[in-house]
Amino acid sequence: MNQAQRGRPRDTRIDERVLRAAATLLLRHGYAGLSIEEVAERAGVAKTTLYRRWPTKDHLAVAVVAHLQDEDDITDTGDIRRDLSDYTEKIATALNRLRSAGRPAGQDNRSAGVVAELVAAGARHDDIGRMGRHNYARRNALAVALIERARERGQLRADLDPLVLLDQLAGALYYRVLITGAPVDRHYAEQLVATALDGAANRKEAPRP
Amino acid sequence: MNQAQRGRPRDTRIDERVLRAAATLLLRHGYAGLSIEEVAERAGVAKTTLYRRWPTKDHLAVAVVAHLQDEDDITDTGDIRRDLSDYTEKIATALNRLRSAGRPAGQDNRSAGVVAELVAAGARHDDIGRMGRHNYARRNALAVALIERARERGQLRADLDPLVLLDQLAGALYYRVLITGAPVDRHYAEQLVATALDGAANRKEAPRP
Repeated sequence: MNQAQRGRPRDTRIDERVLRAAATLLLRHGYAGLSIEEVAERAGVAKTTLYRRWPTKDHLAVAVVAHLQDEDDITDTGDIRRDLSDYTEKIATALNRLRSAGRPAGQDNRSAGVVAELVAAGARHDDIGRMGRHNYARRNALAVALIERARERGQLRADLDPLVLLDQLAGALYYRVLITGAPVDRHYAEQLVATALDGAANRKEAPRP
Repeated sequence: MNQAQRGRPRDTRIDERVLRAAATLLLRHGYAGLSIEEVAERAGVAKTTLYRRWPTKDHLAVAVVAHLQDEDDITDTGDIRRDLSDYTEKIATALNRLRSAGRPAGQDNRSAGVVAELVAAGARHDDIGRMGRHNYARRNALAVALIERARERGQLRADLDPLVLLDQLAGALYYRVLITGAPVDRHYAEQLVATALDGAANRKEAPRP
């Protein structure tokens, strides 16, 4: 939920329509293909209404992504290995969708695409940066709660900082998409979670001095 | 080393002068403060020479960062916990330097700054994206070798994929800088390495069915 939405609870349906139209355009045509004019037309909303809520295309794009993230549930089955694998895979799927937005299907392109554009928008505009960080803090709080419950059940170490585990899972995905260009998928999500839970150290050896 | 350098081994000293001048400007004034004109003047090189090697400011900036990364050694003391903490801290220091480049000292700003600009440049220009990924592959190969040696010494699991561990360490740092805006420092580097090596799962419990 962005600043504007919070102040105008009655306008939720307009927001919803605008964000859905914008999401369609962004995912189909990429960042360059997201035009405020076309979003207004598709959503049947005056351009001025749109600009009042999202002063620039960058603002709108960040709101769209927060909206898309909210569609992904975080499931707590009690099996933390499975739940974290599912959650990590969902992030991977969302990143792949944004990464390939606006590109011909099947094109072998390792560019970060829209993901990089959003990161740059956050660095260009302080208010977008704050909005983005707010969205992530809100989303990550759900995953932190999932990890905390598993910790309380004794499945995770008592001294584990949930945010560090989350950084290692989500961070690895963003690093691949934004920096190394390596692929992210279900297999990688499971490999990540296994490595994070079981640890990289060799337990078979006696502890080193 | 970029494409142009590879073809012109004799020009290394000019490259070195240009990259050093550009690094100074980039770190002092940020992305906006990096001007090809000023770099050429400081390096005592004709602008045309500069443009032949780096056709845009984006190209030059990515080359500068690769050059800065090369100044950081990777140390192998035989103590993988310490070596990975040192390596992770070096990445954190480099990211903090780029993140705060061009900002007034002491300013509380969680923006990713130049780091985000570089990521966006890589997404905007295919050749820069390839160059950036090539630089990271080259750098990461050194860290992978460090991890492999520790694995051979029996300090790390025999089935560990070194790239996954590396993604978890470097990825967590980039995620904080680019996405959540959380701080990265020596303490965090050590916490990251400890969590990655020891694993998040509770070993005191009997293995779950």
